[in-house]
Amino acid sequence: MREVAEAYFEAWGEHEALLLKPPRSPLSIPPPKPRTAVLFPRREGFYTELGGYLPEVRLRFETYGTLSRRRDNAVLVFHALTGSAHLAGTYDEETFKGLSPLERAFGKEGWWDGLVGPGRILDPALYYVVSANHLGSCYGSTGPLSPDPRTGRPYGKDFPPLTLRDLARAQARLLDHLGVEKATLIGGSLGGMVALEFALMYPERVKKLVVLAAPARHGPWARAFNHLARQAILQDPEYQRGNPAPKGLALARGIAMMSYRAPEGFEARWGAEPELGETYLDYQGERFLKRFHAES
Amino acid sequence: MREVAEAYFEAWGEHEALLLKPPRSPLSIPPPKPRTAVLFPRREGFYTELGGYLPEVRLRFETYGTLSRRRDNAVLVFHALTGSAHLAGTYDEETFKGLSPLERAFGKEGWWDGLVGPGRILDPALYYVVSANHLGSCYGSTGPLSPDPRTGRPYGKDFPPLTLRDLARAQARLLDHLGVEKATLIGGSLGGMVALEFALMYPERVKKLVVLAAPARHGPWARAFNHLARQAILQDPEYQRGNPAPKGLALARGIAMMSYRAPEGFEARWGAEPELGETYLDYQGERFLKRFHAES
Repeated sequence: MREVAEAYFEAWGEHEALLLKPPRSPLSIPPPKPRTAVLFPRREGFYTELGGYLPEVRLRFETYGTLSRRRDNAVLVFHALTGSAHLAGTYDEETFKGLSPLERAFGKEGWWDGLVGPGRILDPALYYVVSANHLGSCYGSTGPLSPDPRTGRPYGKDFPPLTLRDLARAQARLLDHLGVEKATLIGGSLGGMVALEFALMYPERVKKLVVLAAPARHGPWARAFNHLARQAILQDPEYQRGNPAPKGLALARGIAMMSYRAPEGFEARWGAEPELGETYLDYQGERFLKRFHAES
Repeated sequence: MREVAEAYFEAWGEHEALLLKPPRSPLSIPPPKPRTAVLFPRREGFYTELGGYLPEVRLRFETYGTLSRRRDNAVLVFHALTGSAHLAGTYDEETFKGLSPLERAFGKEGWWDGLVGPGRILDPALYYVVSANHLGSCYGSTGPLSPDPRTGRPYGKDFPPLTLRDLARAQARLLDHLGVEKATLIGGSLGGMVALEFALMYPERVKKLVVLAAPARHGPWARAFNHLARQAILQDPEYQRGNPAPKGLALARGIAMMSYRAPEGFEARWGAEPELGETYLDYQGERFLKRFHAES
């Protein structure tokens, strides 16, 4: 890939060393069209690693640029837990109107717009960039909100638990669908873990592997944080009653955010007004309720 | 105070540098007798720093050793948020039976037994050790569980919010009650913050000040953790319905524990079996429900 302009230092959080400042470019890509592919059709189905079954699997995805004749310029970007397929560019009004309410709540702009565009690190003139929404998400792929073809009603709590391996397998099938044998993988957080798993499962399909802010294995500290966040959702009776965005989800988001940030960062940002740190967590939690589903 | 035998290094948590290994001594003190003093009687009352009012204030306390004739050997120990007046020694059966259910759930043994006893750092042969339960606690001092003398019913949610200054003022009044002008103060965590506040309010009454694991001021990171823990309790409808130990309190305990421990400590203790870190949090949370009250 091309040279980056400079290292990007964000003054708080533990991930700053991994962020790069892309070359500045005022150009953004034209509005992308989200697409949906049926990757595991009804005649085949999808058996999850833990023994669950999905009669059909669809992934929502977007592509930027063109696959080269030698089919050697594909870059597959894996989003983090709460991300979506909408990587870069800004949806036009017509496309935006056609989206689900949660997708509209996610916003018009791609989540990693700074990296994809003319003159940016992932320049669509050079690369065929693919960004798929993970299996199990609430942003257009088969997930708890999707109708179960057997009942016609959303899976809800009956949606089978997924593993990284399931997510990687669905992404590999998408590469098949697009006629891509080998790709560079980029993923951060959950996406980085999926990328690592993908590389273990299909080493011959990986050209380069870029893993940001993701471990090969979850240690007890990270697991404990995730456990508390899950408890915050599970203990909320609103969630038990079927509310897809209960207050406990906002609390879970707050708990997760504490694991993303270092005390030094909190001090740098809110040292002068410590109560604003609390307000920030509440704000992020409330905002999150509008755009995410507790089961995803 | 006397020399300590060696520095005590605990391999996890962030407080290890502050722990001291007391000299070994097989002797423990005889069973202490908890006492309760009315420090602000009904004719006087207690106005809190934030403008609340308590018609009467009692503190539960225990003393170890004897005040010297020159009245210069007093040591006042301030417990942490969830601690009690029961500092050292083991209650005998008769005393234990006379305690409230929450006090019995706290256990028979004093919470800092290793530090107080014959041949230990705080030897009752040398010091007059006083340990009072903070105002607002659920272990025998005036708190949300106490009957409001105006109504005969427990204060519950009507109990006024307290500040460190209120807690320090009640402790100072206890020293008056015991005829102690000047004392060495020792406090950890919340107790350390009360000790700092006490020293600011009554510098002439402080002989030495020992502050463990406590800041002079809460930074935004610590406030954010406390905020999430409070939210975990407040969001629990069981708490809203008056359950004194709702599930949210266990979650709050888990959130608090994440702020006490460093990732390295989790790794050292549960690196081989990461899921045990989650079990540990659940266990601590469940155990906590049995011995603490959500409003204290």
